[in-house]
Amino acid sequence: MLAAVFNNKTKQVDVKQVPTPIAEANDQVVNIRAAALNHRDVWITKGMYPGIVDGIILGSDAVGSVDGRDVLINPGLNWGTNEQVQGQDFKVLGMPDDGTFADHIAISSQYIHDKPAYLTDHEAAALPLAGVTAYRTLITRCQVQPGDHVLVTGIGGGVALMAAQMAIAMGCKVYVTSGSQDKIDKAVALGAVGGANYKSEDWHRDLSAMSGGMDVIIDSAGGDSFQFLVKLCKPGARIGFYGAGQGKWTNINPQLLFWRQVSILGSTMGSDLDFVNMLHFVSEHSIRPVIDQVFRLSDIHAAFDRMAAGNQFGKIVVEI
Amino acid sequence: MLAAVFNNKTKQVDVKQVPTPIAEANDQVVNIRAAALNHRDVWITKGMYPGIVDGIILGSDAVGSVDGRDVLINPGLNWGTNEQVQGQDFKVLGMPDDGTFADHIAISSQYIHDKPAYLTDHEAAALPLAGVTAYRTLITRCQVQPGDHVLVTGIGGGVALMAAQMAIAMGCKVYVTSGSQDKIDKAVALGAVGGANYKSEDWHRDLSAMSGGMDVIIDSAGGDSFQFLVKLCKPGARIGFYGAGQGKWTNINPQLLFWRQVSILGSTMGSDLDFVNMLHFVSEHSIRPVIDQVFRLSDIHAAFDRMAAGNQFGKIVVEI
Repeated sequence: MLAAVFNNKTKQVDVKQVPTPIAEANDQVVNIRAAALNHRDVWITKGMYPGIVDGIILGSDAVGSVDGRDVLINPGLNWGTNEQVQGQDFKVLGMPDDGTFADHIAISSQYIHDKPAYLTDHEAAALPLAGVTAYRTLITRCQVQPGDHVLVTGIGGGVALMAAQMAIAMGCKVYVTSGSQDKIDKAVALGAVGGANYKSEDWHRDLSAMSGGMDVIIDSAGGDSFQFLVKLCKPGARIGFYGAGQGKWTNINPQLLFWRQVSILGSTMGSDLDFVNMLHFVSEHSIRPVIDQVFRLSDIHAAFDRMAAGNQFGKIVVEI
Repeated sequence: MLAAVFNNKTKQVDVKQVPTPIAEANDQVVNIRAAALNHRDVWITKGMYPGIVDGIILGSDAVGSVDGRDVLINPGLNWGTNEQVQGQDFKVLGMPDDGTFADHIAISSQYIHDKPAYLTDHEAAALPLAGVTAYRTLITRCQVQPGDHVLVTGIGGGVALMAAQMAIAMGCKVYVTSGSQDKIDKAVALGAVGGANYKSEDWHRDLSAMSGGMDVIIDSAGGDSFQFLVKLCKPGARIGFYGAGQGKWTNINPQLLFWRQVSILGSTMGSDLDFVNMLHFVSEHSIRPVIDQVFRLSDIHAAFDRMAAGNQFGKIVVEI
């Protein structure tokens, strides 16, 4: 079969013929129709991920079929029994195990779920990892409530968009940040109240003026800006974060936090329960993942380039 | 009656005769037998507290009697209906309302609770504000579990000691930090496993080696050291903080936090429910607040000096 295989020497992804996998024990072989990129795929090619193995098929998200049943795959393997945190054996599909940028994948049937019927193949391929990460951060961890003021930073990425869409669907007032006015406008078109360009010095004051403060903030930037997120918190606010692309937090004033009983909640991926709850939630609200662009498997280098450039608004999909 | 009254011009506490309060509406007049100091009393005399009013009787904690019934007072007034966070009308007894460093206090009967019979007057006077603050941080917010590894920083203060005692009573493995080996030794005598002197460069590595990491950390120091508390977190850990005497957090690595699903939980004081639950908890476990020293009301300046110097181990009590 054709697959996109990571070469750890060249740090390149080679699209080439590999043996079609065979189902073992509790596995089933899924015939993949579409997959989607995640930031981790790019980080792996840059060597910025723990436990990288040579010769692995990349890709965490997929939609396809098994015995005529339309399915998608939960890419979070071996979470374990503790809902609070993944166990030591937890791993994400697509490194160190072979992933979804391929015609077929053999995977344990416990990770195979019915594809929500209202979604296209491209939308369903875009859902799994971004959907479960957004769901856990926003709902499991931050316990967002209808009517909450919700800020999602760095709108445009897959998780940020899913979090914004989920909050909008719940009846929250959603605000966004971006370095691009075009992305802010697109978020408003999706139902956000407004946003601020973080390249403007006054971005946090503008957000404070337009919102009166936030009940929930969803962030994956971290860095120097995080100190201003703290200042945007209303009493009882929750900040959920699932990344820190801009690095360390500096200059955080804890006085603003403890008196207001603010919670800062780290989150990554999601449990099997989070995944099932996410599927129910998006189906109940008919949420459709935003697709940025669709590439063929043979053009996957262009898909990686688009993800690395960071100009996307929505998920980058790979048609298999 | 005799009372310790704050003079906002001189920033002094004057012990002098004032009119005995009269019960209004739902109030009852409590005949006070003992009170206790809190850091906020010292901060008020330094002008480091919002909403300071001249001529107010200081003091938040008290034990005494009403109609022959032995009682103590919940000093957290007007929390409101939201368990997550206090409302805008919340205030702590002893500023801006007259407090407990006096022969009598008139207070709404909803804040008057039966004194746990097993406690002495001095112990009961030491319990309310430190007890409810420790209870909310450790149990309501951090949801500590039996067997957890718990670090309490800055052992010696009233809240830190209560948190350590509560965690020990629950069957946790408790570790402490202090700048004084004598205080660490006293904490071990109370049941802590061990501790580290934060004046040593290796304090966090020593704690890591002796504990294998923490499930719960209770902090009120903040400052530059906070970055090392983050490094001590086990997967799923909770850091509860109710102060930040050392100022802003710097150099925090969020990568350590989100992958481990760590929660950083601000907390202050406690709700009426926290107070009732705290009374049940300490009674069930026969926890006795540690008394540092007892002063007469006429010697209250010496009590303030001892609190300001920070050498105490346990609560500073004022006999009325």
